[in-house]
Amino acid sequence: MITRLLLATILVILTALSVAPSQATSSESSAPGFVNTLMPQPAQLSTQEGRLTIAPSFTAIADRFRDARLDAAIVRSLERIKAQTAISIPIALAAANTQAALVVSVDGAGETIQSAGEDESYSLEVAPSGAHLRAATVVGAMHGLETLQQLIQADATGFFVPAVTIRDTPRFRWRGLLIDCGRHFIPVDVLKRTLDGMAAVKLNVFHWHLSEDQGFRIESKAFPKLAGMGSDGLFYTQEQAREIVAYARDRGIRVVPEFDMPGHTSAWFVGYPDLASGPGPFHIEREFGVFDPVMDPTRESTYKFLDTFFGEMAAIFPDPFLHIGGDENNGVEWKANPRIQNFMREHNLKDTAALQNYFNQRLLKLLEKHGKRMIGWDEILTPDLPQGIVVQSWRGFDSLAGGARNGYNMILSAGYYLNLISTAASHYAVDPLPEVNDLSPEQQARILGGEACMWTEQAGPQTIDSRIWPRAAVVAERLWSPGNVNSVDDMYRRLEVESLRLEAFGLTHISHEEVSLRQLAGTQQIGPLQVFASVLEPATFDEAFRQHPNQLTPLNQLADALRPDPPSRHNFELLTHGYLQDPASRTQQERELTANFNAWIAAEPGILRLMAGSPVLAQAKPRAHQLTELGTVGLEAVSYLSSGLPAAAGWKAQKLAILDEAEKPQALVRFTVVQPLRDLVNAVPEAPNK
Amino acid sequence: MITRLLLATILVILTALSVAPSQATSSESSAPGFVNTLMPQPAQLSTQEGRLTIAPSFTAIADRFRDARLDAAIVRSLERIKAQTAISIPIALAAANTQAALVVSVDGAGETIQSAGEDESYSLEVAPSGAHLRAATVVGAMHGLETLQQLIQADATGFFVPAVTIRDTPRFRWRGLLIDCGRHFIPVDVLKRTLDGMAAVKLNVFHWHLSEDQGFRIESKAFPKLAGMGSDGLFYTQEQAREIVAYARDRGIRVVPEFDMPGHTSAWFVGYPDLASGPGPFHIEREFGVFDPVMDPTRESTYKFLDTFFGEMAAIFPDPFLHIGGDENNGVEWKANPRIQNFMREHNLKDTAALQNYFNQRLLKLLEKHGKRMIGWDEILTPDLPQGIVVQSWRGFDSLAGGARNGYNMILSAGYYLNLISTAASHYAVDPLPEVNDLSPEQQARILGGEACMWTEQAGPQTIDSRIWPRAAVVAERLWSPGNVNSVDDMYRRLEVESLRLEAFGLTHISHEEVSLRQLAGTQQIGPLQVFASVLEPATFDEAFRQHPNQLTPLNQLADALRPDPPSRHNFELLTHGYLQDPASRTQQERELTANFNAWIAAEPGILRLMAGSPVLAQAKPRAHQLTELGTVGLEAVSYLSSGLPAAAGWKAQKLAILDEAEKPQALVRFTVVQPLRDLVNAVPEAPNK
Repeated sequence: MITRLLLATILVILTALSVAPSQATSSESSAPGFVNTLMPQPAQLSTQEGRLTIAPSFTAIADRFRDARLDAAIVRSLERIKAQTAISIPIALAAANTQAALVVSVDGAGETIQSAGEDESYSLEVAPSGAHLRAATVVGAMHGLETLQQLIQADATGFFVPAVTIRDTPRFRWRGLLIDCGRHFIPVDVLKRTLDGMAAVKLNVFHWHLSEDQGFRIESKAFPKLAGMGSDGLFYTQEQAREIVAYARDRGIRVVPEFDMPGHTSAWFVGYPDLASGPGPFHIEREFGVFDPVMDPTRESTYKFLDTFFGEMAAIFPDPFLHIGGDENNGVEWKANPRIQNFMREHNLKDTAALQNYFNQRLLKLLEKHGKRMIGWDEILTPDLPQGIVVQSWRGFDSLAGGARNGYNMILSAGYYLNLISTAASHYAVDPLPEVNDLSPEQQARILGGEACMWTEQAGPQTIDSRIWPRAAVVAERLWSPGNVNSVDDMYRRLEVESLRLEAFGLTHISHEEVSLRQLAGTQQIGPLQVFASVLEPATFDEAFRQHPNQLTPLNQLADALRPDPPSRHNFELLTHGYLQDPASRTQQERELTANFNAWIAAEPGILRLMAGSPVLAQAKPRAHQLTELGTVGLEAVSYLSSGLPAAAGWKAQKLAILDEAEKPQALVRFTVVQPLRDLVNAVPEAPNK
Repeated sequence: MITRLLLATILVILTALSVAPSQATSSESSAPGFVNTLMPQPAQLSTQEGRLTIAPSFTAIADRFRDARLDAAIVRSLERIKAQTAISIPIALAAANTQAALVVSVDGAGETIQSAGEDESYSLEVAPSGAHLRAATVVGAMHGLETLQQLIQADATGFFVPAVTIRDTPRFRWRGLLIDCGRHFIPVDVLKRTLDGMAAVKLNVFHWHLSEDQGFRIESKAFPKLAGMGSDGLFYTQEQAREIVAYARDRGIRVVPEFDMPGHTSAWFVGYPDLASGPGPFHIEREFGVFDPVMDPTRESTYKFLDTFFGEMAAIFPDPFLHIGGDENNGVEWKANPRIQNFMREHNLKDTAALQNYFNQRLLKLLEKHGKRMIGWDEILTPDLPQGIVVQSWRGFDSLAGGARNGYNMILSAGYYLNLISTAASHYAVDPLPEVNDLSPEQQARILGGEACMWTEQAGPQTIDSRIWPRAAVVAERLWSPGNVNSVDDMYRRLEVESLRLEAFGLTHISHEEVSLRQLAGTQQIGPLQVFASVLEPATFDEAFRQHPNQLTPLNQLADALRPDPPSRHNFELLTHGYLQDPASRTQQERELTANFNAWIAAEPGILRLMAGSPVLAQAKPRAHQLTELGTVGLEAVSYLSSGLPAAAGWKAQKLAILDEAEKPQALVRFTVVQPLRDLVNAVPEAPNK
């Protein structure tokens, strides 16, 4: 049978209907035909007539400073250009006195250990005769190389870089991505391709969450039972950790390790129960949530242990900062332990928060001893800690601003939790420093930036790419680009291009869906399922969390296959709203909408047939029928709107009820098209009640 | 715009047209409803009524022998069952006295170092009450676990294993896959997933081709300049090599390293020119072919070097065999060197073949010293070498039989060169021991098996999965299953299922096409390209080699995206031939054929539009127009055949000329549908010349 071929072939029929991509740009001046697909947008961009052609003779030189890191970065760029263009350009730097297509002029290496103070700015001038990249540091040059890569375009005559002048510098200096490798272990190769993606969008901090109740993930030679008994064998060797640090540094990315304490520490106690405040026995926690096990801050042996441990980790992680977590300690074990209660009385610590503050001050001394600055979550912030610490806010702007007012350096993560499965647009709208705020310039300067967070209750090695990408690129743009770069439509247009560029690193955020649907269906003929998937996304974190709460839950369901905020969601919204501007004359949009609705309806039998052979897919059976209902609602609405005839009384309420029903939690997947459909229904005039 | 959504949605429309998969089985007795998707087919299979349900309580025990390797294999099986079923089964062995769904009874560990003599047989009985796997060795048990995995099926009620009794043992004991990591370096993670795939289809030898003119790929501590100067930095550390050996052993796979000598050794000489017969200087060879550089067999220093080198490698590779290559020495440098000519006269060596024979005998002594047996290609076979060696034939059955007659153990690779981009069917037809042969039973026993070969002139890390898989599974079946398992249609039916199972290991043989088409097109809307790709495959090796001959050639063209022998090829052949059996009444097939032809024709504008923005795709522009021509030929032929009306005189010649033209080499891609179209055209009656 040739179903696959047939399905693929019919695909073409509707291409003629598709509209051309909008080409709005955020640049300040644009030559005709220039298509701006940069992400993040640079601080300043002007375009000129002309282009630099990419030919087999394309060569690169570094004409001022050179070191191994810069050379490697340029060689990687050349390899990527070769891969993209399939032009066999030389993969090596030419001698500095050569006439070269790309000239990289760097003042110096930059900081020996990259900090948040690193000069990351660069300028890039591209003319038909060549491209000239200038930067004070190697990190700045690497950002410029990424911009150059994003500028490459093609037409029938070949590949080229349009003539531009860019002067670029980040708005915020701390632009991070946290990956929780505790709740689910994420292998080294996945982290490496994630670092490639981070560099591509100019993120500069990998916040490596290495310990959790559910797993302790790095080898300690001093305390081998930490990973030995606390990780199910899934941990990074010290050699691998160093490899990641070096890989990140080669891409201008700092690595900030987090060892969350005193809570979130169950996995430490499996091998070292004496660290704990409670009596044990302890186990690797399989559930997710906030748990009682907590370090004992009253014993000197705890600090002796941590002194040795921090020393060991300081030798692996050169970054100035070490993250000590500090969040979500419920204090239960401290209250239950008479010895700890005694200690609190003796030291005049009035509550568990005060005890944690005592603990943090002890940690601070240990960190200082090992040359590290402290960073922790909101909870660590008390006036007793010095202003040299950095506080990461998961609570939001008020907490952020409050810290800044009190003299603390702050970074924002509230609003950037990728695991919540929100839209890119919602993250894009969150600004660490909104235009309207009451902070003084000095206080504003204390807001260093932010971090996207990828917590892994609901994600594992196979699914994490699509949970991070491409949405992290939107946070990256918010943190790099000027605050007035905020067109949502333009962001989505560029994000769809960036998503493809990220795929070239081997990231699986697009392909995972197709692979998984084949696996779920047990066949390569997944046409109807692709229709289904095109209007679905995973449930929100909260919904999934209630039904799917365990480290051992398989992450191989339909929800795990789907992409959060797929491109089809915003595209369908655009189509619907374009149509609604003038339903009577929007025949092109009407055809597209109708084709969609018909296809949804036509898909149901095929989906049900595939579900009949797949118990996992079958869990979403009610959704398959709802797909037909949504299609029917859409067809009816468009029919009324295009004809201008009113619907019968009660029609609207009935259809809205169907849409409300389709929006209810079910099977851990939700429709992406309900709101635009609601807009269609609401736009239909209804005949008055008779 | 919503092109992607639209394209996906319309996919569904034709599903109702598709025919159900044929369900022919090769089993000896089948219960109703049993669908045999095993690959390779077992030696004996009978099915019964009933099924073993996979429930959350699914547990496994090993009730006789246990060791770490067996435990790990069972745990891996449980993990795969969990991933496939999304049922949270326990991932650990239960205590041996538990009532378990899977009982594994193994007699013992098997050989300390797995050899070609390992007992690989197993039996598997599945009843509603449980599955019982019995084997003499851990390797046998691992094969049985793979069979169990392949037996898992699903219907609306859930996942289950049908009741079966299987007694299985391989037909040949040497079932290998060679990967040439010399011409292109293949990273460790790609090798690991390949080993997973090999284990799944019961291949048991990974032939690791580690040195070539184009690269020396393993670290030598004794001779650091081998990889240091001969690999462009792309080589395996000794630790990584040991990791691969252990990973393979854990899957019942031997690792036979090959160090090709005395020819194919340019990369050795970059660091160690004194090993060479010619004067140098030497460079890593970038072209592909047969080159002059060759080891100097007349100097004692050469043997001293190899003695040390073999000693070092013997400590890494425990397998009894070490492959010394021996192929394609053109003798040019030996003839050109007066000192070597003198040596030949002094030692009465009449030609360069005799000198190579002298070299091989010296190698043999060195290998024996380090506890290794010699294996090499056809060329090493002379009566001067003892019968303990094994000869690998790239020349074919005559050479194979000749060696066996002369007392040598032989393995076949001729006919199994995956890099030639032939069909799975063509490899399937090649038997190391054809039913009709004139070998005595003793001579037959000397034919140990065969090896599929993946040479990498035209493949790199991104493309190698689709060059190896799924076709290697067909060679695996030929080498494992009884010789009378040879239905091509049934093979292709099962191969399409096996291909999906292989995808679950992270192999990219299916997804690479979609990923690459997106990259080539620079958009996620690749509908028309998918139509195009569905009737294309890469050019044959010979054609590609002429146009694409260099290690530095980018492997990012359309040809590199395509899959060799895609499922659509055989499926289209089946459809056409089904239709031709009775064109007048085959309305279902007629509809499917017509839909295909129309879709090809409809695709051309979309393909051309994408090509206009993609200089790489544009190289295949002539093929896009030919697609329309093929569709038109098809439509006309079906129209005549279904109506029964004759075509005008000359029609046939004209259409066949179009097909001939479409078959000519172009753009490194070729159509998969030309022969069935020719069959259609030839079946059309033509009116006599007027």
